[in-house]
Amino acid sequence: MQKYADKYLKLDPWRIIEEGFDSERCNVSESIFSLGNEYMGVRGYFEEGYKQGEFIGSYFNGVYEETKEAAALHYKGIVRDTHFMINSVNWLYTRIYVDDEVLDLSSSEFDEYRRTLDLRTGILNRRFIWKTVSGKHVKLDFERFVSMGSPRYGCQRIAITPLNFYGEVKVVMGLDFDVLQKSSAKKYWTTIERETLEDYIYILGKTSFTEQKVFSASNISSDSIYKSNVIKNEDFIGYELIINGSQGIETKIDKVVFNYVEKTKEIEAAEVIKTASKLVNNFDNICYDKEKEKHIDYWTKVWDKFDITIDGDMDNQQGIRYCIFQMHQTYHGEDPSLNIGAKGLTGEAYNGHTFWDTETYCLPFYIFNNPRAAKNLLEYRYNTLPMAIERAKQLDCEGACYPIATLNGKEACSLWQHASLQMQPSTAVAYGVFHYVKLTDDKEFLYDKGCEMLVQICRYLATRGDWSGQTGEYGYFGVMGPDEFQMMVNNNCYTNYMAKKTFEYTLDVIKDMKNNCPAGLSNLVQKVDLLDDELQAWSNMASKMKITLDKETGIYEQHEGYFNLPHVDINSIPVEEFPLYNNWSYDRIYRNDMIKQPDVLMFMFLFRSEFSEESKKVNYEYYEPRCIHESSLSPSIHSIFASELDKHEEAFSFFNFATRMDLDNYNRNTNEGLHTTSIAAAWVNIVYGFGGLKSDGDKIELNPSIPKVWNSYSFRMLYKGTVVEILVDKTDVRASVIEGTEVTINVYGIDYKIDKKGIELGIPGAARG
Amino acid sequence: MQKYADKYLKLDPWRIIEEGFDSERCNVSESIFSLGNEYMGVRGYFEEGYKQGEFIGSYFNGVYEETKEAAALHYKGIVRDTHFMINSVNWLYTRIYVDDEVLDLSSSEFDEYRRTLDLRTGILNRRFIWKTVSGKHVKLDFERFVSMGSPRYGCQRIAITPLNFYGEVKVVMGLDFDVLQKSSAKKYWTTIERETLEDYIYILGKTSFTEQKVFSASNISSDSIYKSNVIKNEDFIGYELIINGSQGIETKIDKVVFNYVEKTKEIEAAEVIKTASKLVNNFDNICYDKEKEKHIDYWTKVWDKFDITIDGDMDNQQGIRYCIFQMHQTYHGEDPSLNIGAKGLTGEAYNGHTFWDTETYCLPFYIFNNPRAAKNLLEYRYNTLPMAIERAKQLDCEGACYPIATLNGKEACSLWQHASLQMQPSTAVAYGVFHYVKLTDDKEFLYDKGCEMLVQICRYLATRGDWSGQTGEYGYFGVMGPDEFQMMVNNNCYTNYMAKKTFEYTLDVIKDMKNNCPAGLSNLVQKVDLLDDELQAWSNMASKMKITLDKETGIYEQHEGYFNLPHVDINSIPVEEFPLYNNWSYDRIYRNDMIKQPDVLMFMFLFRSEFSEESKKVNYEYYEPRCIHESSLSPSIHSIFASELDKHEEAFSFFNFATRMDLDNYNRNTNEGLHTTSIAAAWVNIVYGFGGLKSDGDKIELNPSIPKVWNSYSFRMLYKGTVVEILVDKTDVRASVIEGTEVTINVYGIDYKIDKKGIELGIPGAARG
Repeated sequence: MQKYADKYLKLDPWRIIEEGFDSERCNVSESIFSLGNEYMGVRGYFEEGYKQGEFIGSYFNGVYEETKEAAALHYKGIVRDTHFMINSVNWLYTRIYVDDEVLDLSSSEFDEYRRTLDLRTGILNRRFIWKTVSGKHVKLDFERFVSMGSPRYGCQRIAITPLNFYGEVKVVMGLDFDVLQKSSAKKYWTTIERETLEDYIYILGKTSFTEQKVFSASNISSDSIYKSNVIKNEDFIGYELIINGSQGIETKIDKVVFNYVEKTKEIEAAEVIKTASKLVNNFDNICYDKEKEKHIDYWTKVWDKFDITIDGDMDNQQGIRYCIFQMHQTYHGEDPSLNIGAKGLTGEAYNGHTFWDTETYCLPFYIFNNPRAAKNLLEYRYNTLPMAIERAKQLDCEGACYPIATLNGKEACSLWQHASLQMQPSTAVAYGVFHYVKLTDDKEFLYDKGCEMLVQICRYLATRGDWSGQTGEYGYFGVMGPDEFQMMVNNNCYTNYMAKKTFEYTLDVIKDMKNNCPAGLSNLVQKVDLLDDELQAWSNMASKMKITLDKETGIYEQHEGYFNLPHVDINSIPVEEFPLYNNWSYDRIYRNDMIKQPDVLMFMFLFRSEFSEESKKVNYEYYEPRCIHESSLSPSIHSIFASELDKHEEAFSFFNFATRMDLDNYNRNTNEGLHTTSIAAAWVNIVYGFGGLKSDGDKIELNPSIPKVWNSYSFRMLYKGTVVEILVDKTDVRASVIEGTEVTINVYGIDYKIDKKGIELGIPGAARG
Repeated sequence: MQKYADKYLKLDPWRIIEEGFDSERCNVSESIFSLGNEYMGVRGYFEEGYKQGEFIGSYFNGVYEETKEAAALHYKGIVRDTHFMINSVNWLYTRIYVDDEVLDLSSSEFDEYRRTLDLRTGILNRRFIWKTVSGKHVKLDFERFVSMGSPRYGCQRIAITPLNFYGEVKVVMGLDFDVLQKSSAKKYWTTIERETLEDYIYILGKTSFTEQKVFSASNISSDSIYKSNVIKNEDFIGYELIINGSQGIETKIDKVVFNYVEKTKEIEAAEVIKTASKLVNNFDNICYDKEKEKHIDYWTKVWDKFDITIDGDMDNQQGIRYCIFQMHQTYHGEDPSLNIGAKGLTGEAYNGHTFWDTETYCLPFYIFNNPRAAKNLLEYRYNTLPMAIERAKQLDCEGACYPIATLNGKEACSLWQHASLQMQPSTAVAYGVFHYVKLTDDKEFLYDKGCEMLVQICRYLATRGDWSGQTGEYGYFGVMGPDEFQMMVNNNCYTNYMAKKTFEYTLDVIKDMKNNCPAGLSNLVQKVDLLDDELQAWSNMASKMKITLDKETGIYEQHEGYFNLPHVDINSIPVEEFPLYNNWSYDRIYRNDMIKQPDVLMFMFLFRSEFSEESKKVNYEYYEPRCIHESSLSPSIHSIFASELDKHEEAFSFFNFATRMDLDNYNRNTNEGLHTTSIAAAWVNIVYGFGGLKSDGDKIELNPSIPKVWNSYSFRMLYKGTVVEILVDKTDVRASVIEGTEVTINVYGIDYKIDKKGIELGIPGAARG
């Protein structure tokens, strides 16, 4: 792994601080200072405009446009019409003038610049002194937040202090639909209406193909506005404010914005305006300070319950809090029609799409921090089950095939080699149901919706698979596993193993329902025409599933023939050839034993309770040297294995950049947006890796270790309604209940009943002082 | 094989006859009545216009336009800029008016329609009686040919006879660049100039990206033109002729067209006009009748030397002559910068591209019928060697990688799965050199050019391949063999076998040159920096090449793991699901043991001398039932195997539609153009199949058999300068020299010296009367 930190921001346990502004890092910083609240997200761009290379990004979760005929190949099952998240109204639009000079940090002179994101409060602040050409000095203090208390609200405050003069400062603050998609430089919005009412202004934009609408309204309040009028352009509406500034006196302008989204094509603009206008009357009751209080209150509760502390390593302390912050602000279970894009709501890369990362990396975080959010993520899959059923049909299969990439539930990946060959989204949904139900006991969800998904996924698995011509085993031919460097292979071990587990779990659930929810089962059987023969067939497929284990070595063969592939010594590849996708002939990537990300190790991680340490050891030692980690999700899984195998330095080395992937721009592409799902992997890395958590078995197990450089660390988990804190220092582990009733947890192989008093155990083998 | 004849045309040993016109078959007939002369080709469209669905197609060999950014995936080695043959000037443009009514068979009333292509002469004739709304009857007789005597000339004659009136008939005959590409409905030409000179008119069109130019000039002659003037439109120039018709008197108008092509972008239009105008002065010396005589003379010589006769089967007699006719008119060795497109010059499907069909199917025809043409086809590959070297670099390889589809030598296939994974074009070129040299003894070509190609191909083979991780054998990973239903496999047996043979042959040639052409070798070594180490490496690769033969059964495994693929009973696939590409999910095609076309059988055919009958038998019996023949090239190879294995009825059944694939529109897509390379396969089928020819060994071997329904058949072959005729009847085989000196040919396993007197042998096992 040839990754190096690009150190730029200041270290602080609770804040992300940029002191002095480096224009070269403008877009990276915009990503890092992104704010969101699941409903919407906005990059940390300068609201007053930054002509030299700003990347204005304002996104609404699930608002998208479509591309027709995206695929070059027009065969059955190849997705032609894709969709992508689009850049929407710039609701922070601001321009500031003194003596007709417009403020723009790409050309204006300025001093004492400092930008701070306070993770405790979710408030972003930026301040500097602007020195105009005419010699005037103005202190500017910008504050913004995207309300976690009221999903549709975003708030912006500008405080202006003339330092050496008395006179006018002109401020324009508006709502701008004249926005381009960064990636294509195309404009996808048409402004349908923009209007001035007594208390507020609004604008409504519509997309061309999907005809989705975004209504944005704002009011302004300030104690000392001298003059105000409204400006309208084709795609813009805003207030022009003239402030009569006095030297040394601060003038605050507060802007509260209400954004309302309507995704249904058929609902006309007029109706959207009517509905939104009713809701917007809230402006009477909403003011910046009240909303800020609510917002901070939300964050206080989050940190009180779910902070992770690391003593002795400020980099990772700051890093992990940044990760936790991102997870909560990207998604917290507000709306089951929403999901998590690979870049959250912070950029356009990956088109805003949701991948199987949701179930494999994000879901564990939410299960232990916010089960309502975890449930909503699964509800999202249930809501999109009809699209998955449709997709299976396109692929000549039955049941439900979940998409590799999507916003609205339809497959949006026009590359058939991924969309048609990668089956892990479907088995990941099944795993998500399994994992969520196991840890929350939410049988209601399981019986009501989970089992229906499981049955449809099994049908897909039963029609996509085949019986080998020679050995008579069942398996999957022509697939791509999680390792995308092996494109079209037979009997990928991950795919087969996950399918086997899905069949088995589904049959278990049906058995459980037979006993405990016969009415629910009978409804389901009727609804989906489930036959006993099918169950029999699944059982047979599960038991005859080909799992390619070399009995002599204990190594699982990633797919049939993998062991005989040409070997590439990954250390011999020159650094400048990475990423290989950019530098190697496309086909060359796919014909050797180099892997992009864990594949065998991935199923051994997901079902880590089921494999012996010896089995993990041989497989880790075989596959780790073949993995180039070209996926940002890869190192954390390896770190978790290394921890379990007592390779503690290796574990820490793989963990190294997990929490700071974006803060230190390790992949040099944070400018495009944050690696949101990798951020989830950082949490997973600490809790499953150093904490040694196993959550797939009949009981929760912990096996904590501590990286050498740390003095101590602690994390908290919500488990069956109880918040448990695990505190690990150099010698001991302390587990105690913070909130809720007694729970049983297995630590180092022994079950303990843990209550508020807690337990304290020595770390096996730790040197005591 | 679910293919049925669409019987429409009349049977005749020498002519293709359409009696009465079926508008539904309009485009099919246009294809069938296509004419060409290697330099250009023109579909059999109605020159007077046929509004209801005409497909005007006029093509010049190697004249193309480019498409930028054709591929959706932008990775290294994936072709973005492709090129395709374009529809060019309609030099047959005609309009005929009586009383302001325009003749158009899609709306006009007509009678006694008959269209005839005479294969003996290469003349296309069409006649009918037009009945105008005003009650006038006009007999029209159209004749055209594309001159085999003078490559740039096309000739058209219209004879007009008023049957029941005296009066004016207006005829417009011109050169029209207002043509659209059929497939895209786009116009690719800009007219640069159109001019009237004393003797002739001309027009010059230019393409946008490639800036290729086509200059077209024509004169008109007739004894009885009343009035004539020239009409010009933006993209058109033509003569308007008023004929003063007399009842019962025929008026002939002859149009001779000179077409001149300039493919070099840098040569300006003015210069092209200058050059072409000099050449066009020939109009003085060229007249329709003289040109026709030359043309017919060419065809007479062809038939005298290379006819195939079939007695007792008019369908195949007509069919094979049609095939022979197509082969000669598509390509006959005029110009080594030209090649043969999959559809010849008869349509736009496959973009006019040349595939490996040239070396595997067409080359044998030319070697035995027209060695100059065979040599030119190889010269074409030599001329495009620099592009093949460039292509190898794009694929991170060394040496030369020949394109899967091309007009100008550059890879034009934007589907990476074909362009990057299919290696057979390169090994086919090597095979072509081997086969051509073996049969012609053209060592000059071999030493001068052939060996250089071989060396560069070996370099590609040596850098594209890899050593297996486990077994240490050499082979090719991530490839698609000839069978395109197995997309991305390891150690495809065809690929490996052909690579092995290429290495071995190249090393043999180098050894040969060491002894017989040391100066040539030393030049080559210097030119391409050939090292002894390389030769050593190739020898090692050849000897360690993985050839997956199951020793117990004698069956070659098509690729590693093929035997274990799920089995599909191809007879269980409903007829309406063919072609599978249109009806199956794209990925589903690639994950079972069904094959599209011969793969193992293909290398066993190319090197048929090297395999025992037993080996052919087991492999044929294993693979034949798995093959669905979705390639039109497939059945002939199977027919050849069946003949050799004494499965004579099966052999005839596979041969069944080979000669009439287009005449009876078996694939229902002849409307798009002829299956020109399949037409070559029909010849190969008779000569290699029923004739039992083996031409890859040290001597020519024949093993004739005769289909039950035939009384006799004969074919001729040019072999080392001698024309040999083989005549087979129900009991005997007669071989004799028609032209040239004595040759030795092995028949039924015994060498015979054959002279003009010939030999006569009984067919083994034939029942004698």
